[in-house]
Amino acid sequence: MSQFDDETRLTPLGDGAFEGLVSPDWSIGSNPNGGYLLALAANAIAAQTPEHPDPLSITVHYLRPGLGSQPCRIHAQVLRSGRQLSTCRATLMQDDSARIEVMAAFGNLGVGTQPVIEPPAPSIPPPDQCVPRSGDQQGINLPIMDRLEIRLHPDEVHTKVGGRAQITGWIRFKDGRDPDPIAALLFADAFPPSVFGQIGAVGWVPTVELTVHLRRRPAPGWILGQFRTGDLADGRMIEDGMLWDSTGRLIAQARQLALVRQPG
Amino acid sequence: MSQFDDETRLTPLGDGAFEGLVSPDWSIGSNPNGGYLLALAANAIAAQTPEHPDPLSITVHYLRPGLGSQPCRIHAQVLRSGRQLSTCRATLMQDDSARIEVMAAFGNLGVGTQPVIEPPAPSIPPPDQCVPRSGDQQGINLPIMDRLEIRLHPDEVHTKVGGRAQITGWIRFKDGRDPDPIAALLFADAFPPSVFGQIGAVGWVPTVELTVHLRRRPAPGWILGQFRTGDLADGRMIEDGMLWDSTGRLIAQARQLALVRQPG
Repeated sequence: MSQFDDETRLTPLGDGAFEGLVSPDWSIGSNPNGGYLLALAANAIAAQTPEHPDPLSITVHYLRPGLGSQPCRIHAQVLRSGRQLSTCRATLMQDDSARIEVMAAFGNLGVGTQPVIEPPAPSIPPPDQCVPRSGDQQGINLPIMDRLEIRLHPDEVHTKVGGRAQITGWIRFKDGRDPDPIAALLFADAFPPSVFGQIGAVGWVPTVELTVHLRRRPAPGWILGQFRTGDLADGRMIEDGMLWDSTGRLIAQARQLALVRQPG
Repeated sequence: MSQFDDETRLTPLGDGAFEGLVSPDWSIGSNPNGGYLLALAANAIAAQTPEHPDPLSITVHYLRPGLGSQPCRIHAQVLRSGRQLSTCRATLMQDDSARIEVMAAFGNLGVGTQPVIEPPAPSIPPPDQCVPRSGDQQGINLPIMDRLEIRLHPDEVHTKVGGRAQITGWIRFKDGRDPDPIAALLFADAFPPSVFGQIGAVGWVPTVELTVHLRRRPAPGWILGQFRTGDLADGRMIEDGMLWDSTGRLIAQARQLALVRQPG
């Protein structure tokens, strides 16, 4: 019924091993999106820790690009299981090579808890007054844009260099599937690189490492995301992101280290 | 000559295995500081990747408290080595149990590169006008304060509840050792929890996971650190930190997920 559920489904092989297929439909160009690969690995971990099904903190290192349309094998391992959380790791392999390595703490996300301190959601125009993200970026085809709807703040649609290194917008599944913690892993890596606004489009910005902290289960509806690059030096940038649900509650924080070819 | 070097020294046993001693002198109460344990593991990884000696991104999960005055064994493994970086992991064991699990990307940090985008250092009084961090916190002895000098912003020394969840201050080794990337891992976890300023001292705030991004090699002298908790909900908080060197250059960003008992 849901494309995302269908295309992140795994077959357990026992002993923490799982088999699946990496769909070509969540790709940027010919590379499967990093958040999509992370969601596959997170599903394998969740199946190993039924008492702690939610990623509270999950870190992924990207060793090699994934291979769309090809099978994958995931090995997930619980390193330690305590009362509040389980520490786990997973490796996603394709064609006999590790593609991603994941380390995570899984636990139980709440729904209704009142936060003590919470970063407020930014105020932006509603989705129908924002600009749809195109399925094409610098001539690169984005198959993932047939799966996701992304609407960007009209003031931040980057057509020229010299703005802010910030991108704000709405995101949801095209087929109407509601967001959940695993979907938030995908959403944390699905916006255009925020650095484009300041230094211009610089081509491929490969992620070295991405860490996502899930904060609560999202309410149904659009997710609002804001991403900023406040630190770019020596060909490496750090981008921070936050996701809020349709009730204005923070559901996730994300940070990634990416490589970037500096202009000039 | 340097206490930190002496007390993070490892003996290689071959095949990525190392042996060392966890000093009791970098502890908070009876628990070895998390940044100190991370520095031990980082030294093991660095020894396995001589062409990529610096942690560009390093994530640690704390499974069990370390044991001061007891030997440790570290297993470090290079998962993939490329031109720009090596992806690695390490496990620090004591008493036959894994204490910390580390995943990292190691590479080469620059010194003189001009940043394209850089978070500016906050302006605070010089070290001699700041308040020394005491060797005692809520009645808990802090042996680590015999190894480190920490001077806190006088406006942020938290004697009462209701301020900002922010802490800013200076840090250096007491014995005069200059800072370097491995020391920055320690410094990223050596300030008092910033959340104390807003909700008051809440006792033990155990770190679940800490990620540090090293940005450049530090210049000699004091390091300036600023830490903020902008997100506390459901008994878990996310604290963000930055470290700048004596020339005002950003040398590291850090983020940790910690457990906290909420008041009320």
